[in-house]
Amino acid sequence: MGSFKGHALPGSFFLIGGLWWTGKYSFWYATRRNKCLGSTRLASRASQRRLEVMESSLMLLFSVVGMLAEQFAAGGPHLRLYDTSENQWKDLMNWQHATMYLFFWLAGAVSLVVHVTEAVPLALDRLALALAFFIEGFLFLYHLHGRDMLDVHVHQMLLYSVFGQALVVFLEVFHPGNITLELLRSALCLLQGSWFWQIGYVLYPPGGAQWVLTDHNNMMFVTMCFCWHLAASILTVSAIYCAITCVVRSRLKRTPPVEMGLLKHRDGELESDEEAM
Amino acid sequence: MGSFKGHALPGSFFLIGGLWWTGKYSFWYATRRNKCLGSTRLASRASQRRLEVMESSLMLLFSVVGMLAEQFAAGGPHLRLYDTSENQWKDLMNWQHATMYLFFWLAGAVSLVVHVTEAVPLALDRLALALAFFIEGFLFLYHLHGRDMLDVHVHQMLLYSVFGQALVVFLEVFHPGNITLELLRSALCLLQGSWFWQIGYVLYPPGGAQWVLTDHNNMMFVTMCFCWHLAASILTVSAIYCAITCVVRSRLKRTPPVEMGLLKHRDGELESDEEAM
Amino acid sequence: MGSFKGHALPGSFFLIGGLWWTGKYSFWYATRRNKCLGSTRLASRASQRRLEVMESSLMLLFSVVGMLAEQFAAGGPHLRLYDTSENQWKDLMNWQHATMYLFFWLAGAVSLVVHVTEAVPLALDRLALALAFFIEGFLFLYHLHGRDMLDVHVHQMLLYSVFGQALVVFLEVFHPGNITLELLRSALCLLQGSWFWQIGYVLYPPGGAQWVLTDHNNMMFVTMCFCWHLAASILTVSAIYCAITCVVRSRLKRTPPVEMGLLKHRDGELESDEEAM
Amino acid sequence: MGSFKGHALPGSFFLIGGLWWTGKYSFWYATRRNKCLGSTRLASRASQRRLEVMESSLMLLFSVVGMLAEQFAAGGPHLRLYDTSENQWKDLMNWQHATMYLFFWLAGAVSLVVHVTEAVPLALDRLALALAFFIEGFLFLYHLHGRDMLDVHVHQMLLYSVFGQALVVFLEVFHPGNITLELLRSALCLLQGSWFWQIGYVLYPPGGAQWVLTDHNNMMFVTMCFCWHLAASILTVSAIYCAITCVVRSRLKRTPPVEMGLLKHRDGELESDEEAM
Repeated sequence: MGSFKGHALPGSFFLIGGLWWTGKYSFWYATRRNKCLGSTRLASRASQRRLEVMESSLMLLFSVVGMLAEQFAAGGPHLRLYDTSENQWKDLMNWQHATMYLFFWLAGAVSLVVHVTEAVPLALDRLALALAFFIEGFLFLYHLHGRDMLDVHVHQMLLYSVFGQALVVFLEVFHPGNITLELLRSALCLLQGSWFWQIGYVLYPPGGAQWVLTDHNNMMFVTMCFCWHLAASILTVSAIYCAITCVVRSRLKRTPPVEMGLLKHRDGELESDEEAM
Repeated sequence: MGSFKGHALPGSFFLIGGLWWTGKYSFWYATRRNKCLGSTRLASRASQRRLEVMESSLMLLFSVVGMLAEQFAAGGPHLRLYDTSENQWKDLMNWQHATMYLFFWLAGAVSLVVHVTEAVPLALDRLALALAFFIEGFLFLYHLHGRDMLDVHVHQMLLYSVFGQALVVFLEVFHPGNITLELLRSALCLLQGSWFWQIGYVLYPPGGAQWVLTDHNNMMFVTMCFCWHLAASILTVSAIYCAITCVVRSRLKRTPPVEMGLLKHRDGELESDEEAM
Repeated sequence: MGSFKGHALPGSFFLIGGLWWTGKYSFWYATRRNKCLGSTRLASRASQRRLEVMESSLMLLFSVVGMLAEQFAAGGPHLRLYDTSENQWKDLMNWQHATMYLFFWLAGAVSLVVHVTEAVPLALDRLALALAFFIEGFLFLYHLHGRDMLDVHVHQMLLYSVFGQALVVFLEVFHPGNITLELLRSALCLLQGSWFWQIGYVLYPPGGAQWVLTDHNNMMFVTMCFCWHLAASILTVSAIYCAITCVVRSRLKRTPPVEMGLLKHRDGELESDEEAM
Repeated sequence: MGSFKGHALPGSFFLIGGLWWTGKYSFWYATRRNKCLGSTRLASRASQRRLEVMESSLMLLFSVVGMLAEQFAAGGPHLRLYDTSENQWKDLMNWQHATMYLFFWLAGAVSLVVHVTEAVPLALDRLALALAFFIEGFLFLYHLHGRDMLDVHVHQMLLYSVFGQALVVFLEVFHPGNITLELLRSALCLLQGSWFWQIGYVLYPPGGAQWVLTDHNNMMFVTMCFCWHLAASILTVSAIYCAITCVVRSRLKRTPPVEMGLLKHRDGELESDEEAM
């Protein structure tokens, strides 16, 4: 992954994931709050579940692709772990990245089982995701031995967002459906994505001129830059949230709920929906 | 900010903020507890909201002023980030302080939206404030590289109060309206304010005689001094709390509630007020 | 314990314990969820308590055996703490391991009292277990002074699982009967067990060829290997959970509940069961 | 405080405090659980409050005595902070200890106000106590610069118990009346007390023979010894708890509740008692 592309690729994934989560949770929250306007027409329980199943399947797919790419792309270890001819481990970096994908694959699998069958408690979903983020941070943490100061520093910043996300998702196990935590998670996911791009720009500048990796001023700038990324991701989340809330409201107001009988039925459905969250 | 004034100014802001919060939360708690005496005459839901809007607006205003001052005051970077002539970053300190203000600006903006519109969950307010304090501490943390022992130490003490405050506000996300946490937050805000003044006195003594920045005894004294500041801020909060509680009670006892019909109506109003908290 | 066997033995204990917990909690959760099918035939309150008493007794037994083995096995200190002839402590390692067993003995004793008598609050059970894991980690933490890099590293990995388990059990004090935490605890227990085996293989390879204890690549491999153990233990827990859920369901469906009167009585019993959890 | 007595004295205070708390909380828990037997005869709401007021007053008294002793005992600073003749701080140690007492004084004062008046939320009581323990640990933390390895180590062990206690009391703010946390706090208080005695024995052995302060084996023994102290304090708490529970039960069974009318009245009283906790 020692290249610009190697950082831009996961960055893009996390950016898309963050945007997706922001949209999903904002939409659900807006429909939950506007129950009285008959918002269940927009998001019924069945459609929510279908969405979750789709999300989990995509997660499964991408992590399998990621694992295969790390193993079989040019220069990959092709599933061999130890090079007996040279008496050393083969392509440990690729193996580590494949391990990270493995845990996201696990999170996707658990999420799929949770939303397809009824037998598994809902919170396991979040627990598996929290573990995936934790392991990502854990492997990065022991990744940094003997690198340059700035290289270590940009990755440390990354760790803040990764471990922060792990913590937030772990808290969601105990506070399911808490919109504050869900939006925070989305913002941290966006932050992680954009920071991956930034790391790419700092360590492998596409333009050419290299950064001095041992300059203390560069380190201070990078710290500040990380805060700007956070501010930007918070503003993005806010904008999406406001847009979706407005759209949902205007839509609901334009088309009044049809019949009281039908509505009542749907309200009950939503109620159970909420407690299931 | 390498001057006495540069520390006294934010110190004064935080002192005023801490006093304000102490008063506000004590007053609301006193009116909530004395509902049976008709305390809603003193603090109706609408007036509470007006107060919050005012507070948020002031926060927005001050942080904008702060950002402008850091950028355009004498010696500021005037929005230029990189000095291409000298090939180095321009006035990173000012940029860092402006970044801190930026997050308080964000917290103010979120708080304003929360209290003006109904569409945003209340807890986002606290989350944004917690982030603002966290980022303040985060930037200070990477501020201290290569300074003298005592200089580092006084700023570390500051970090305790800043991160403590971030933690307390984050806990408030899950325990909204908890008076214990609110008073603790107020006390920590006062502590932070008075400690800024203390840092000014230690690093840039207005009298003249410099402190020896490498003496271990000075460090021990400073540690202890930090505890005294905390004790003083707790006593201040206690005094204000007691004064306000007494005033509210005596006022309510002097002027008995007018009519039962009116009172009932107001009680209902307060009830919803509380659960909204 | 400086041998392969010395690591394989506790490893096996934790493996068995983890499997047992996975089975127990999965079974109870399955019966709780399928109350409507009359699952109380499978797990009545009395049988649950009998199981707990048995578990505690086994824990007591094994920890006493462990303590005796550490003291009186060949090379043990035979309860003498200080060797006055050589003016030094006698077999500190054995004493430390005996101390670890002591706290598991305490946890077993508390658990026994909790489940035999009614006078003790249920959560004390978990608290004692959390302390036992904490002390295990605590003693390991101060165990590692002056060892080789890889030796320290594999034990640090162990500490992650041990302290993680202590934390999870401590959280269970406040969230009793939370299946998510219980399964996480089981997975971490399995992880600890299998990691003990791995430590044995790394430090005392039975085959012969020694690992280079100062090679950074080995350290990176070991970190990754720890993640694989975690993934394996999660998969094991998932497999057992699914198997047990399926078995319970199929059994309940084959033999329909007998009589409504009896069932009602049992349902009430289970209800109180749940809140007691 | 660099003497055997200087460690034995606070140790004794904490031992007495721990025993007192164990007894108090065990007794209240036993009476709460045996409500149906009319246990309110033993602990009415008024008597509970009287006990709390007494406890707070004693805490106030002892901390004032402690502060005076630190200031005016032979070799104390007599309230002078800076020795201008020698240009250095005067008796910083004594000032630090006086500061610790100051926070326990604060905790006592807050507790007194909480239990005498009705105007203050109950949880402030615990918050002030948590702060007192935190500050004790905080000052000890910056106390240890430049001492011998074993000296630092025994004080680090002390910090575990002090910060552990601060954390437990802080958790009690959110889980008031949780018997598990209260017993844990009592055990940690006993641990702290007995460990103070142990520190005295290690650093200023009354017998004569000095400990080698740089021997790694001594450090390992001390770590283990700390665990034994913890085990002993847990056993002490358990023994007291069981004894009190048995005594309360046997007493209640011997003298059956007098009249239903009276009982009902008292039960109601206790109910509100509980929720006030």
